[in-house]
Amino acid sequence: MISKNQLKLIRALGQKKYRKQHNQYLVQGEKNVLELLASGLTMVELFATPAFIEQYQQQIGYVKVTPADEESLTKASTLVSNNAAIAIVEMPQVNAPKAEGLILALDGVSDPGNLGTIIRVADWYGIKHIVTSLDSADPYNPKTISATMGSFVRVAVSQVDLADYLVALNLPIYGAFLEGENLHHTKLAQSGVLLMGSESHGIRTQCAALVTNKITIPAFGEAESLNVAMATGIILDNFKRQA
Amino acid sequence: MISKNQLKLIRALGQKKYRKQHNQYLVQGEKNVLELLASGLTMVELFATPAFIEQYQQQIGYVKVTPADEESLTKASTLVSNNAAIAIVEMPQVNAPKAEGLILALDGVSDPGNLGTIIRVADWYGIKHIVTSLDSADPYNPKTISATMGSFVRVAVSQVDLADYLVALNLPIYGAFLEGENLHHTKLAQSGVLLMGSESHGIRTQCAALVTNKITIPAFGEAESLNVAMATGIILDNFKRQA
Repeated sequence: MISKNQLKLIRALGQKKYRKQHNQYLVQGEKNVLELLASGLTMVELFATPAFIEQYQQQIGYVKVTPADEESLTKASTLVSNNAAIAIVEMPQVNAPKAEGLILALDGVSDPGNLGTIIRVADWYGIKHIVTSLDSADPYNPKTISATMGSFVRVAVSQVDLADYLVALNLPIYGAFLEGENLHHTKLAQSGVLLMGSESHGIRTQCAALVTNKITIPAFGEAESLNVAMATGIILDNFKRQA
Repeated sequence: MISKNQLKLIRALGQKKYRKQHNQYLVQGEKNVLELLASGLTMVELFATPAFIEQYQQQIGYVKVTPADEESLTKASTLVSNNAAIAIVEMPQVNAPKAEGLILALDGVSDPGNLGTIIRVADWYGIKHIVTSLDSADPYNPKTISATMGSFVRVAVSQVDLADYLVALNLPIYGAFLEGENLHHTKLAQSGVLLMGSESHGIRTQCAALVTNKITIPAFGEAESLNVAMATGIILDNFKRQA
């Protein structure tokens, strides 16, 4: 059974302030908790249904685990329903990536669902590290974690002063704009930065000034724009086909 | 002011049963209503803030319009907030597309948000028509319309008996599977069908049997799968780069 104090902690970790204070975050639902169990991340505590505990006994190992029924899990969870598990996880120490391979950089992408979807597609294309501006969505927001579908265990996200970081890198910076070079006809270097802006503001002035190559996904119809996660996936596919 | 009866009708149109009965659907929010006003679709009635009515007087023309404040619009709306407008629109007569260019077909894609995102990216790549299985998400669901970001005015969606429809077409059918030919190395015909299945079930047996070319988005990392809307966008980009 989930105690009152445990419930209070789980609820608190739904908020950024308390995640920072405890240096912990939540991972919820079967798929994400299973990916977590298979990863090297440090789990502090696990709440799970007896069925989940029995089925994954081996993977759970020596983690402190509290059995709970679906109803209490759903009550504690930030998800609409949770029929499996909630884990409390220690935040890993993440350093901004050194110049190596393709780095994905996000300027002001504030929607946690979008960030999670970007982490998932980055994982598909083998990107290990994402850097974001300080005002981007929190990578440890429960909505971000959920949307990654387990990819949060393989892709590290650092929040940095993005302009400072990009200046210091000294690599080609490909920026996605609505008017740039047609992506289908651009030679894409495999060592560099792909910089994406938010849907509402695009790449902002400070970072835009650092872009060395403006690129655009060619449009064949009349939609005004694409969602930032969709655009990121399409551009990564174009980079990787040249790899 | 929105009358009690008008409110009742708006609320009813949030449900499929009543959309079918009235042969009408809702378009909500500034962006979508503006796209609607610029389209050839038939608006039955418009509810909008005085500011919206004044700003877009010319576009509104002779449509029956009821002024309403933001609070009543949000109350009537299925959106979390609505500070602009709600339109009641007549469902157009849509016929399943004849063999011409690239046709996008969806087998059991049941999430309205995913369908809306697919309509938006289809519009970006100039696809004019989507066919879906009868059990796919309703193209007139308010969540579908919202996610299209206005593209619903340019992309027609027909719900059909998908297997029957595909058999009759007699065109190459490209089906997205997790194990197919690497999309980056496949010659893609510009006249044919791109068939996508749902994330949970993939393309189901009946339609899978009709696929002539199995294709796969090559993975460079370890994510198990991609969201169906994301996968559709990436594959459409690959088709169009060969156009």
